[in-house]
Amino acid sequence: MKLTAKEIAEALHGTVEGNPQETVTTFAKIEHGKPGALSFYANPKYEEYVYTSKASVLLVNADFKPRQAVTPTMVRVKDAYTGVAELLKYVSALRRKYRRHRAMTCGISLRARLGKKVWVGDFVKIGARTRIGDCSIIHSNVTIGEDVVIGSHAIIYPGVVIYPKTVIGENVILHAGCVIGSDGFGNAPQPDGTWQKIEHLGGVIIGDNVEIGSNSTVDRAEMENTIIGNGVRIDNLCQIAHNVVIGDNTVMAAQTGIAGSTEIGKNCILAGQVGIVGHIKIADGTIVGAQSGVTKSVRKEGSVLLGTPAFDRAQFMRSYVKFKSAGAEE
Amino acid sequence: MKLTAKEIAEALHGTVEGNPQETVTTFAKIEHGKPGALSFYANPKYEEYVYTSKASVLLVNADFKPRQAVTPTMVRVKDAYTGVAELLKYVSALRRKYRRHRAMTCGISLRARLGKKVWVGDFVKIGARTRIGDCSIIHSNVTIGEDVVIGSHAIIYPGVVIYPKTVIGENVILHAGCVIGSDGFGNAPQPDGTWQKIEHLGGVIIGDNVEIGSNSTVDRAEMENTIIGNGVRIDNLCQIAHNVVIGDNTVMAAQTGIAGSTEIGKNCILAGQVGIVGHIKIADGTIVGAQSGVTKSVRKEGSVLLGTPAFDRAQFMRSYVKFKSAGAEE
Amino acid sequence: MKLTAKEIAEALHGTVEGNPQETVTTFAKIEHGKPGALSFYANPKYEEYVYTSKASVLLVNADFKPRQAVTPTMVRVKDAYTGVAELLKYVSALRRKYRRHRAMTCGISLRARLGKKVWVGDFVKIGARTRIGDCSIIHSNVTIGEDVVIGSHAIIYPGVVIYPKTVIGENVILHAGCVIGSDGFGNAPQPDGTWQKIEHLGGVIIGDNVEIGSNSTVDRAEMENTIIGNGVRIDNLCQIAHNVVIGDNTVMAAQTGIAGSTEIGKNCILAGQVGIVGHIKIADGTIVGAQSGVTKSVRKEGSVLLGTPAFDRAQFMRSYVKFKSAGAEE
Repeated sequence: MKLTAKEIAEALHGTVEGNPQETVTTFAKIEHGKPGALSFYANPKYEEYVYTSKASVLLVNADFKPRQAVTPTMVRVKDAYTGVAELLKYVSALRRKYRRHRAMTCGISLRARLGKKVWVGDFVKIGARTRIGDCSIIHSNVTIGEDVVIGSHAIIYPGVVIYPKTVIGENVILHAGCVIGSDGFGNAPQPDGTWQKIEHLGGVIIGDNVEIGSNSTVDRAEMENTIIGNGVRIDNLCQIAHNVVIGDNTVMAAQTGIAGSTEIGKNCILAGQVGIVGHIKIADGTIVGAQSGVTKSVRKEGSVLLGTPAFDRAQFMRSYVKFKSAGAEE
Repeated sequence: MKLTAKEIAEALHGTVEGNPQETVTTFAKIEHGKPGALSFYANPKYEEYVYTSKASVLLVNADFKPRQAVTPTMVRVKDAYTGVAELLKYVSALRRKYRRHRAMTCGISLRARLGKKVWVGDFVKIGARTRIGDCSIIHSNVTIGEDVVIGSHAIIYPGVVIYPKTVIGENVILHAGCVIGSDGFGNAPQPDGTWQKIEHLGGVIIGDNVEIGSNSTVDRAEMENTIIGNGVRIDNLCQIAHNVVIGDNTVMAAQTGIAGSTEIGKNCILAGQVGIVGHIKIADGTIVGAQSGVTKSVRKEGSVLLGTPAFDRAQFMRSYVKFKSAGAEE
Repeated sequence: MKLTAKEIAEALHGTVEGNPQETVTTFAKIEHGKPGALSFYANPKYEEYVYTSKASVLLVNADFKPRQAVTPTMVRVKDAYTGVAELLKYVSALRRKYRRHRAMTCGISLRARLGKKVWVGDFVKIGARTRIGDCSIIHSNVTIGEDVVIGSHAIIYPGVVIYPKTVIGENVILHAGCVIGSDGFGNAPQPDGTWQKIEHLGGVIIGDNVEIGSNSTVDRAEMENTIIGNGVRIDNLCQIAHNVVIGDNTVMAAQTGIAGSTEIGKNCILAGQVGIVGHIKIADGTIVGAQSGVTKSVRKEGSVLLGTPAFDRAQFMRSYVKFKSAGAEE
């Protein structure tokens, strides 16, 4: 990355105060600012650093009124915090290469159909009848089974495994090592104590604008489909069991697990290491605190839950205060 | 998949009521039945759908007496619910290809010994002196180290890593990304606060008819072996530490972890996100509820535990009712 | 492995009592000792086995005085327990091959720079401008992105994925399937309920002598770096989020997760399945019990915590005793 203050201002519709040719090659927090770095100032509690920062360029709010001299070149934008996110996106897009590429060492079935400007890295296996949309990037050591559909502008990072018949929408990002479409965990008990495997012939459908984190797993349905709605964001090491349905724009933090056949509503927020049992429904907008275990359906939208088994967060905190004080030394 | 009602009846030893040439190409729940789909009816609470379903073929119990006209062709079998599992297995077996295959791009040691009809996909590495039994399938991007033994009829899904000297029985399924035989977590504290790595020269032994889920990890023993008994079923993202022994037919749901040197009995059921500390013994038939943490040996067979630290489930639920009510607003 | 009693004594600076040419090819616990096996005796409660063991060679403390005849050849060392760890290390080092090797099927960028005696396995992708230090071993099916730096004597096991720009120190071991440098989980809420992805242009810096377990994940920082200090040991299936800093010699057991921007001190011990929320600081030497959830900064060094939310361990245990007794049947 190499950007001048002028380019930054143009990308963010802002104005330059100082040297428009001042150049930055990296980002740094304002308190770690150094020559060649871009920092931003949004939170008033960091104001002191504005006057001491050695950053070359400082992104500030349009209405910021300095009380002392400011050394870095300032770029004023409507909202400096949002500006950083937009700039990161801008720089990221500059880097992305959309071009046709087939590594010499990849194994693409002659019966697969790849769109325009699809980039395929080394040691990638793509099965028969699989279709991949325009401008998608398939990194090294990825395995994509037969009869898979992947939309345009996908980024599939190294080591991802997509089982046969999975359907993936547009603009999806799958991080390294995640597994989509493995068999659900279904075992029928037998009289002799052994378990008969229940075969899983269903699939997985992933909507548009979904991002799934590293080493997360999404199992295929027994029949029909496991469904992940549009705009869902799943962090690393999460588990989505067979036949689960996740509503649009729901987010879940790392190491969370959803058991089989459960339906999670839209716009829910599940914190890290949450567990949700199988065969229940979670209402839209439900918020579940970290490490909680939800064991019953949640009917009221916007519920906020905590604990294992989880109940109302405020009530849990009152219960927990009493629990804790019971162990205090007299 | 393409099956006629007649073929289904033959596969399941049932009888056809309607058009024996009626053809299905997919499965659907009875309430989602559509032309070309096979549905089943077993639970009386869904009876209304029998009379409205648009499925082409309906699997029902032999003794079902309809109270209205039924449009789909019916196949009567002894037990419609079990019939579905059998049919899924039947269809799955039809698909499986048992044939000799070596992808042009795989790397098999000249000193490895592969049985009859072993199928090896692209970018598979198989080390020296490793033996793989008849009819096993090794998918793409799998790494199998040196001196490994894998029995017949194994299915090793893409991205699996098997460290050297691992021994795996017959009919084992390893799902994508799971890792067998990595070093146990052993670190000896040093006077200066650093940790000396304890080398792990033991192995992992996996019995027959075992299935291990995606991205699960099984560590090798320090000396001797980590052992997974016959018929064990392990879900996704589980952790089995060094020197653990798991008894036959024990099942564990996703994200469960067993710490080092613990011995789990036979026919135990561990729910999701359970943790079991190291160096304890769990009696046969123990059931542990989701997210529980077992910190002490369990001597009584068939114990049912809940909580962290875990104790008797019924007692935990009574304790928890009081905990919860303590936080209710007056 | 094939060692004589004499070689063992020389490697451990001990003395032989019996046949110095007695040969062992494997390890076994003293109670499982068999001809050809090496066992050790350190814990007095196992003394009875000394007189019945069928092991060929027995490692004992220098001051051990047998009360009966001992059949195996004994090797006396200062401390038999530490001796085993040293011997395991010795045998492991004998096995390690430090030699230049490039698998025919690997894909190394012409612009990557590899040190002396670097070993590269099959189906390994190494990106442009990446530098790898002397005597490092890169196993099969590994993907290393562009602009990565890896120090000398690294062992990168199969299936590991290292995203671009990651910096890794000397003597680092990354176990199979672990992912270093994937995007942090950053999503800015939008007025319509969707989430805008926050691009992550920062990196990951891993110190010297670090070991990271199978299928663990370490995310890159938004800007600046996620940092893992020297001598840190991370077990399998752990999650280190963006911008986390982990102090030197801290260890964490399997399935533990650290949320974004949290700083963990030096010499901390986190047990299995622990969760630590984002944006807090944990003092040096803190110990957190299994499955606990830390929700607030810990200022006092050497604190011992338990529970979710976690507080003082001893107090938690007193509270828990009362919680448990509340559910006892009258």
